[in-house]
Amino acid sequence: MTRESAGVPGEDDGDSVVYDLDADCTAEDVEQNQPYLAEINGIVDYGVFVDLSESVSGLVHESVLEGTFAVGDELVVELETVRDNGDMAFEPAEVDLDDGTTVEAVTHDYSLTGTDRLEGTVGEQIHLEGEVVQVKQTGGPTIFHVTDESGVVPCAAFEEAGVRAYPSVEVGDVVRVTGTPEHREGSVQIEVDGLSKLEGETAEEARDRLEDALESRAEPHDVAPLIDWPAFEKLRDDLQEVATLLRRTVLEGRPIRVRHHADGDGMCAAVPVQIALERFIAEVHEDDDAPQHLIKRLPAKAPFYEMEDATRDLNFALEDREKHGQQLPLLLMLDNGSTAEDVPAYETLAHYDIPIVAIDHHHPDPDAVGDLLDAHVNPYLHDEDYRITTGMLCVELARMIYPDITDELRHVPAVAGISDRSKADAMDDYIDLAVEEGYDEDRLQDVSEALDYAAFWLRYNSGDQLIQDLLQINSDEEERHRDLVSFFADRAREEVDEQLDAAMAHLEHEDLDNDAHLYRIDVENYAHRFTYPAPGKTTGEIHDRKIEETGDPVITVGYGPDFAVLRSDGVRLDIPQMVSELEEEVPGGGVSGGGHLVVGSIKFVKGKREEVIDALVDKMEDAEIDEALSSAAPIDD
Amino acid sequence: MTRESAGVPGEDDGDSVVYDLDADCTAEDVEQNQPYLAEINGIVDYGVFVDLSESVSGLVHESVLEGTFAVGDELVVELETVRDNGDMAFEPAEVDLDDGTTVEAVTHDYSLTGTDRLEGTVGEQIHLEGEVVQVKQTGGPTIFHVTDESGVVPCAAFEEAGVRAYPSVEVGDVVRVTGTPEHREGSVQIEVDGLSKLEGETAEEARDRLEDALESRAEPHDVAPLIDWPAFEKLRDDLQEVATLLRRTVLEGRPIRVRHHADGDGMCAAVPVQIALERFIAEVHEDDDAPQHLIKRLPAKAPFYEMEDATRDLNFALEDREKHGQQLPLLLMLDNGSTAEDVPAYETLAHYDIPIVAIDHHHPDPDAVGDLLDAHVNPYLHDEDYRITTGMLCVELARMIYPDITDELRHVPAVAGISDRSKADAMDDYIDLAVEEGYDEDRLQDVSEALDYAAFWLRYNSGDQLIQDLLQINSDEEERHRDLVSFFADRAREEVDEQLDAAMAHLEHEDLDNDAHLYRIDVENYAHRFTYPAPGKTTGEIHDRKIEETGDPVITVGYGPDFAVLRSDGVRLDIPQMVSELEEEVPGGGVSGGGHLVVGSIKFVKGKREEVIDALVDKMEDAEIDEALSSAAPIDD
Amino acid sequence: MTRESAGVPGEDDGDSVVYDLDADCTAEDVEQNQPYLAEINGIVDYGVFVDLSESVSGLVHESVLEGTFAVGDELVVELETVRDNGDMAFEPAEVDLDDGTTVEAVTHDYSLTGTDRLEGTVGEQIHLEGEVVQVKQTGGPTIFHVTDESGVVPCAAFEEAGVRAYPSVEVGDVVRVTGTPEHREGSVQIEVDGLSKLEGETAEEARDRLEDALESRAEPHDVAPLIDWPAFEKLRDDLQEVATLLRRTVLEGRPIRVRHHADGDGMCAAVPVQIALERFIAEVHEDDDAPQHLIKRLPAKAPFYEMEDATRDLNFALEDREKHGQQLPLLLMLDNGSTAEDVPAYETLAHYDIPIVAIDHHHPDPDAVGDLLDAHVNPYLHDEDYRITTGMLCVELARMIYPDITDELRHVPAVAGISDRSKADAMDDYIDLAVEEGYDEDRLQDVSEALDYAAFWLRYNSGDQLIQDLLQINSDEEERHRDLVSFFADRAREEVDEQLDAAMAHLEHEDLDNDAHLYRIDVENYAHRFTYPAPGKTTGEIHDRKIEETGDPVITVGYGPDFAVLRSDGVRLDIPQMVSELEEEVPGGGVSGGGHLVVGSIKFVKGKREEVIDALVDKMEDAEIDEALSSAAPIDD
Repeated sequence: MTRESAGVPGEDDGDSVVYDLDADCTAEDVEQNQPYLAEINGIVDYGVFVDLSESVSGLVHESVLEGTFAVGDELVVELETVRDNGDMAFEPAEVDLDDGTTVEAVTHDYSLTGTDRLEGTVGEQIHLEGEVVQVKQTGGPTIFHVTDESGVVPCAAFEEAGVRAYPSVEVGDVVRVTGTPEHREGSVQIEVDGLSKLEGETAEEARDRLEDALESRAEPHDVAPLIDWPAFEKLRDDLQEVATLLRRTVLEGRPIRVRHHADGDGMCAAVPVQIALERFIAEVHEDDDAPQHLIKRLPAKAPFYEMEDATRDLNFALEDREKHGQQLPLLLMLDNGSTAEDVPAYETLAHYDIPIVAIDHHHPDPDAVGDLLDAHVNPYLHDEDYRITTGMLCVELARMIYPDITDELRHVPAVAGISDRSKADAMDDYIDLAVEEGYDEDRLQDVSEALDYAAFWLRYNSGDQLIQDLLQINSDEEERHRDLVSFFADRAREEVDEQLDAAMAHLEHEDLDNDAHLYRIDVENYAHRFTYPAPGKTTGEIHDRKIEETGDPVITVGYGPDFAVLRSDGVRLDIPQMVSELEEEVPGGGVSGGGHLVVGSIKFVKGKREEVIDALVDKMEDAEIDEALSSAAPIDD
Repeated sequence: MTRESAGVPGEDDGDSVVYDLDADCTAEDVEQNQPYLAEINGIVDYGVFVDLSESVSGLVHESVLEGTFAVGDELVVELETVRDNGDMAFEPAEVDLDDGTTVEAVTHDYSLTGTDRLEGTVGEQIHLEGEVVQVKQTGGPTIFHVTDESGVVPCAAFEEAGVRAYPSVEVGDVVRVTGTPEHREGSVQIEVDGLSKLEGETAEEARDRLEDALESRAEPHDVAPLIDWPAFEKLRDDLQEVATLLRRTVLEGRPIRVRHHADGDGMCAAVPVQIALERFIAEVHEDDDAPQHLIKRLPAKAPFYEMEDATRDLNFALEDREKHGQQLPLLLMLDNGSTAEDVPAYETLAHYDIPIVAIDHHHPDPDAVGDLLDAHVNPYLHDEDYRITTGMLCVELARMIYPDITDELRHVPAVAGISDRSKADAMDDYIDLAVEEGYDEDRLQDVSEALDYAAFWLRYNSGDQLIQDLLQINSDEEERHRDLVSFFADRAREEVDEQLDAAMAHLEHEDLDNDAHLYRIDVENYAHRFTYPAPGKTTGEIHDRKIEETGDPVITVGYGPDFAVLRSDGVRLDIPQMVSELEEEVPGGGVSGGGHLVVGSIKFVKGKREEVIDALVDKMEDAEIDEALSSAAPIDD
Repeated sequence: MTRESAGVPGEDDGDSVVYDLDADCTAEDVEQNQPYLAEINGIVDYGVFVDLSESVSGLVHESVLEGTFAVGDELVVELETVRDNGDMAFEPAEVDLDDGTTVEAVTHDYSLTGTDRLEGTVGEQIHLEGEVVQVKQTGGPTIFHVTDESGVVPCAAFEEAGVRAYPSVEVGDVVRVTGTPEHREGSVQIEVDGLSKLEGETAEEARDRLEDALESRAEPHDVAPLIDWPAFEKLRDDLQEVATLLRRTVLEGRPIRVRHHADGDGMCAAVPVQIALERFIAEVHEDDDAPQHLIKRLPAKAPFYEMEDATRDLNFALEDREKHGQQLPLLLMLDNGSTAEDVPAYETLAHYDIPIVAIDHHHPDPDAVGDLLDAHVNPYLHDEDYRITTGMLCVELARMIYPDITDELRHVPAVAGISDRSKADAMDDYIDLAVEEGYDEDRLQDVSEALDYAAFWLRYNSGDQLIQDLLQINSDEEERHRDLVSFFADRAREEVDEQLDAAMAHLEHEDLDNDAHLYRIDVENYAHRFTYPAPGKTTGEIHDRKIEETGDPVITVGYGPDFAVLRSDGVRLDIPQMVSELEEEVPGGGVSGGGHLVVGSIKFVKGKREEVIDALVDKMEDAEIDEALSSAAPIDD
């Protein structure tokens, strides 16, 4: 019972006070020995029936009544007794309604039960206020997923089988739910007795309260860095912003779709974040299946977000909204998604309510993607570079989201760094960290090779368990992890050797004017197709062997019918610049492509291959020697 | 109570009549003050017990009895009273069983409750007669889906968990169901108390009645044409036949699988029919999930029904039959399916009970497909041509199936016509219609481009929601529709421009002897592969630009390693004729192909490309100039 | 009631005996007229309350008591009566606890109800002992699948919704379940009242008993061979071992994944085994859905187990374990899986608990695969050869697993033999057997062609029902079978003819030094791609036609950009030998491959095709003529 004026019954002995129950008050709001304003709504032989509110009414027996009454008369009564069947009996209170009487309104006591206290109130009616985050119409009840300050709970409202209950209530509304928490298939669900949309000031207040709570719960954990690395710290604020956004997304019940580069660094980035989010979702959501429904990790084969993937993602999202009333997801791009090539796909999603976040260490084009991203973390935006790999970034992100995961992740930044051949000074610290966990450098190298090999054969599948076993995250069979990693790594090396056995014999060498070695390999004709390693990796492996043999400067070009991949060490190619020049110089060449100073790929139409490559080599002759430059991150095919 | 002879109790005051209840009569069939034939089945101190039918029996108290009786004696009785507990008391009727007495059989009053009145009878026992359209064995009850005159209802019969109830009852049988409608997961389902197969005359009568009702319900709506177009009207009867067949298919509970050409016209055809059928299914079926289970739309990439698609469709159909007891589906081919190339796939399905209907505006080969189709709508069968596009036809078809959809479809024929570049006179009317709905010509053009672009990226997915948003059918977010359409259309044009930037430089020009311009483009070597636009559209776009530049007559050939696509304006190529000549002229060329006078595609073996194309060009030199001829419908790759 | 010492009440009249109930004894263990040791746990006006065990207690009325008692005193009592409400009354027994008294412990009578008697005990509490084979955590109860001597039953234990019950109990533990069998979704399931892991000796005994029973139930049926064929009999023991292993796998509740060669023989092998196992699973498992969950047949396109397939299989297995608590499966390789090429995939699975069995008639490399296989059946291991086809072997295997299937399989070995062109003497007997079943040789040939054709279009789908219809196993529509077989066979022949029409014109002929005819066909340039027949079959068909035309010796080579398929009749090629020579002779050729003396395929890098094929032909010039040699089994592409 909440009294709007200061006084509560019994505390004010001065002027007499009569309480006037609001229409929505229930029997619980009526106290003993307190005077209530009632209205007569019926007269019978044995007394009069009075109403105190919509649901509170009872008999005043004729034996305690004096005088005559008419329906509609007001009467001040006190509770005499509540019978076993719940019927209430009243008696006249010894208070008169005169000028000295203060009438105090009594509002119904909606003391709210938070979603964190539902287990303890199973079977009892409770009240809850929160925001609707999903409305799923089942064949039976309508399920409103409601988030309050502490979690998300499904609330089942039954109107008629398959009929939308409370049709005016939609996702985003703030509602008050009266209902009974019940166990249902392993989760707590509230059976709704009443559900009303809050309006006006009440809604504002509730929304403010929820927003405050959400903001405070979304706040990421303040975790100490795994290693001391000033360059990395420049990105910490950005990561914290993303951690906040992702935690908030979970709290709001919105699904998350992760698209990551299908290589070692990409998986070192995506898996920790996936597991951290799954655990946070499990914590927030009463529904046990929520982690399964709310996060999905998918590899992306291309080094950018392809229209085909975006269309597919959009399709699934729209179907999930249609079938399950889910919100459209947030898209999280990892180790991918920073360049102009991503724009068409991003713009497609932008037409729907799909926020996009990218964490990447590939050379970004912020002018192109900036406006389309809700957050963008990339070392190049802070004058750092690819050496801070996405896996390193995402391990810290995962820890901000769910710090308890830390112990499972200490070796991961080292794997990420090795996968992308990061030459960061901090690599030593990361490797030390991994060694402390029992991973020597050979095993780290093996894990990296094994991830790459598994990613190739998994194609478009996420292979959750297998990858977790390889990375030993969320996986507790160390022996299997070790054996599997060695086996995959060995296979990978063996297959690389086989590929190179065929290819090396066909390598063409040329001494450029600038004294760089140029190696060319026709990967279409002198490498096996559709098998591991793919053209990009084949080229990279050849390049690495040649550097070892001949030392810098070395440029390697692996070309197929309509593409070429480029790697350079000790020579500044500036591939984006080359591409724009080639576009003009080779009319009808259909030249496009991307990359950085020393790593990149170029596409062209088949019929102009020779011309494009010749023009490319001409440019390389003039390229500036710069021994500091080294190709590192693997190229994708 | 149904009397088999003319008389009903009380109406016949002449000769005395005694009623004889059939064995299956119930208490409900017994009326007050009427004499019934009874048999004594027990004698006690206080009277005799009599049976009137298997379930109707009661006491005749000794106080009202005269004489002596033996078990098995007949007695004529009247109802005295029905006690609170349902026990019946009878008294002797003042009728003797003598020669003047007519004995009239009384059959049980199985007054049937139609599936349209189930909501009002939930919880009460009812009778229903209908045809079994699906028998699904669940782990619990057996579910018989029964269609009567007004709808289809699932009837759950429980024999033993997982055991087939009424094993002799199969799909196609006419049955009488006694049971109780109950709500179950949002639908009404009948819990079966008894289910019997009707036999002989009763079955015939019921079947006739059902058939009459079915026929009458299957009758399509008589909708006024959207525009006045005499050419179109020639096809109206055929469309009505198909509308009847499809409505009937829904009424019979048979699933429908739609395969449509994956281009703009194909989607303008398939989506309206899909939505109309979904709404009609929802109306007919008590089961809320029925629309989801009973109709599936799938794009077909090839311009004919491929064996691979047919095998896949058959597989799904057989699995659905095995797992869900569904009937095999009807196949609805839209904007596709009229030619000899469809025959192997059709014949494969013909071995199972799968009816096939084709609605198409591509040049048909009725001799090849006629016998395999249950219905075939095609303007060429009525001396009309491709200008009446499939989308135009299907908008009228959708309206016949479910007229309320009309308001959502007025702009669709214009989009369909623009997509297939229909030169129909009626296009103006269709465009006016669309303009009235707020679609100006630019937007219509954009919708068409956007559909084409989306279809490309969707590949084998139907992308229901996305396509509905682009077409703005069953979709209510106009702003998103507008933005998305512009964005996709712009992207499509941009990517066409990029493709043509590369390709146009490699276009080979030749002046043919007949003064036609011949343009050739090697789309394998001078266009990007696996990206939008595909070779067919690339060729078409080049052709269009050249017509604009040089004017008619123009022929354009886009060729790859083992195929060529052809477009001609102002020259009569007669591609089917060319193909049959080339088959003979180029032995070992593996030439096949299809098309019309001015649009088509040819396949050959890679090694004979030059020879085939040279021979083809020779024929073009001699081709007849005919300015009336114009390639219009896009060619598929 | 089980007495641990020899005596049972009433049998020992010598020294007096008092029975002492174990703590877990129930009222059922208490017999009339027998003395039981009790402890007083309460004293009231009208008597004393005594405990005989944890759940057995009752009143001794003061009227029958003498003396005084204190709580905790021992008393020897007899059962006086059991009241209607289950309350027990005792009276003092006429036995004293003195030195002459033997106290005998009474253990609770856990007489076990086998899973074969659950139907008869629905609703009654029973006990069951068995091994846990699956633990599935649902949102509600935890489901333990327990196998005892006669079957597998799901046992549902509810701790708290979604909370793992009995967390210490895992797959492989032997447990005692007390619970109540109930019908649930068509199956019998036990609602668990108590579940305890057996330990120590009890566990050993139970495990021995279960193991004995398992061993005896796993024993395959001793079926008489379909035909008399001594060569075949050499493999019977191996087949029996596999039958035992597969039956045991079913009894242990482990899933089975079948990967089979996607050709006629492969399907003749896989389908009978699949159906036999499905029927055996249905017999063993109470859960009606078990056959669907526990066996899956999948075609393999390559002639070996590809890494991609293995990765996919592993993925599914790990997901099923994660989601459904299933054991990892046994992999059954049929008509495939005997060679070194299978090793990487096998080793991948070996890191998980996945047993592998191969039944194959391709030339094996037992040194490579031996250690990786749990069983390997192959005629070459017994000095027999490919003429005993896998289909022939698997028909006998299927019969050992489930003999009732025999009548459906008599025609299958003949189809298998024809598909792989077995020249076995026994073919006549097999054909006679089929003829007796109404299959003439033409139809058998047709079935073989039809299977091949269907396999091509099904691609990666198993097409269960369609293949069963073609093979007429588990399928009862003979007319459809006949029609469909003819249709598919005709289509197959027609499409082969079309392919050969194009190809034959481009066949290059050469007379080799050893007088063999060499035919070469460029299947990339002179055959249609991506259509039936694929390159391997195309080459085989050409080879067959040429043998017919020219007679032996004939070698045919079908080559594409990076592969060649070889067929030889009358010439000993020894392809594995050739491959190893080529690997050395053509450096950078990337040569690999496999096969036998007269059938095989070779891969190489595109750019070295000419060199590899020239070197190959050189070898053929020198190859030994051996008229006995004949290429038979079809080559895969």
